[in-house]
Amino acid sequence: MQQQSIAHVKVKRIHSALAQEEDDQLAVEQPLEISVEYSTPGGGRQQQRISITMRTPGNDAELAAGFLFTEGIIQQHSQVQDIVFPPDGDNRVLVGLHPHVNPSLPGSVKNFITSSACGVCGKESIADLRTVSIYPPQADTICLEAGLFYGLQQQLKQQQQLFETTGGIHAAALFDLEGKYLALHEDVGRHNALDKLIGAALLQDQLPLSNVIVLLSGRASFELLQKAVMAGIKIVAAVGAPSSLAVELALENNITLIGFLRGERFNIYSGPQRVSL
Amino acid sequence: MQQQSIAHVKVKRIHSALAQEEDDQLAVEQPLEISVEYSTPGGGRQQQRISITMRTPGNDAELAAGFLFTEGIIQQHSQVQDIVFPPDGDNRVLVGLHPHVNPSLPGSVKNFITSSACGVCGKESIADLRTVSIYPPQADTICLEAGLFYGLQQQLKQQQQLFETTGGIHAAALFDLEGKYLALHEDVGRHNALDKLIGAALLQDQLPLSNVIVLLSGRASFELLQKAVMAGIKIVAAVGAPSSLAVELALENNITLIGFLRGERFNIYSGPQRVSL
Repeated sequence: MQQQSIAHVKVKRIHSALAQEEDDQLAVEQPLEISVEYSTPGGGRQQQRISITMRTPGNDAELAAGFLFTEGIIQQHSQVQDIVFPPDGDNRVLVGLHPHVNPSLPGSVKNFITSSACGVCGKESIADLRTVSIYPPQADTICLEAGLFYGLQQQLKQQQQLFETTGGIHAAALFDLEGKYLALHEDVGRHNALDKLIGAALLQDQLPLSNVIVLLSGRASFELLQKAVMAGIKIVAAVGAPSSLAVELALENNITLIGFLRGERFNIYSGPQRVSL
Repeated sequence: MQQQSIAHVKVKRIHSALAQEEDDQLAVEQPLEISVEYSTPGGGRQQQRISITMRTPGNDAELAAGFLFTEGIIQQHSQVQDIVFPPDGDNRVLVGLHPHVNPSLPGSVKNFITSSACGVCGKESIADLRTVSIYPPQADTICLEAGLFYGLQQQLKQQQQLFETTGGIHAAALFDLEGKYLALHEDVGRHNALDKLIGAALLQDQLPLSNVIVLLSGRASFELLQKAVMAGIKIVAAVGAPSSLAVELALENNITLIGFLRGERFNIYSGPQRVSL
């Protein structure tokens, strides 16, 4: 059964000392258990639970593929044999890998739950925090007009259907280098929204995302930049503020990081060579 | 060395096709490793790393105490012998427990990292998601005038110094039942801000927080309501939207949950009996 992204509840709306009982719509937050199935040297098949993430139902296959990719557990689409939803529950997804594919499973911590806003859970040490991308930074000649960024937030808003309804959901969107809208994913967890976007690109053989702009509806934190690095993304724009560590990671990886993108204003925190005036 | 909560960076500000190099201030995001030290049956002392969380430096002792409490690992202030910052690094905090205190350590997953927005990491199964409070719901006669809530957001803004500077940080604030401001904590992670607030209350022997209003600067998700349940909080107001699971948890625990608190408007999602018009 496909779960819904929106829940309907009764709410008491207060406005200037008047109260009204009304229907309201909320972004659904539910756990999703992500597991992989792979072949063992003996020829059998082994299932391993990787994570339980608090997410908004919808595009769960893309979320699972994206999570496994940005965590470095799988590296390419061709490793994926199938993605199935076991009939015993709505909140499980199983990513089957082709025979001879060895997933890079995390060390001693193989089961962990991530919250609706968690992208770096389950690592064993501070050193483990940084995952290694199969797309190392390469020289490029991308240079975009500043004006191209002005309209992006408006386009994001128009596409954000769940936010429009619930007012409580993050989005990650893709635009091409001419500012044309390509895709968008929404989730109560901002890292899930980006994993869905990257997972969809993986399953459509569109990685690395080196010729697009990724727009985030909220703030840019360490884990979001980490996922951008994993997917070979070179331009990240956020409507909200970046954190100090997000800027450090962007500088290290030569990512153009834009923050506070609102109308005709934005700040460039790293990689300013890709923006011309 | 006390770490800073704010990082200074150079930024290129774009506004209507004009660019200016300026100084900017960012919310610092850095990992903090939280460990406990406890006595073993043999009489020795054992250290156990519990979590690495991405946080904004400041009130790290409160954060550690609050995290251990809301995760159910410790239950009261009297169990805490000392909270020390080992000299070998800026990013470690060690909570020493008195002899004969047995911390309720998580099962097989004892080391896990939480992101700047994660509050339910490291659990082994969906069933483990729900922690059990030592303060079960009890009948109360709290009833507040709706108008009392109108001014809270403005007071929050006035107290939010780091947000004022960086534009990128969450806050959790306490108000008494007359709407008087009591305390506030800020962090890049909303769950950390609440853990700091609850940890400070624990260390000042003010738990349960059954006679206060907790105000969250952002959205209300499952993990935030979970922490509220742990601390015996009965009234949670959020400036942003709640998730479906946050409302479910509030209903189960008879918590008054208010969302979209903006000026003279708000929505009551559960526990409306505590708000009168």
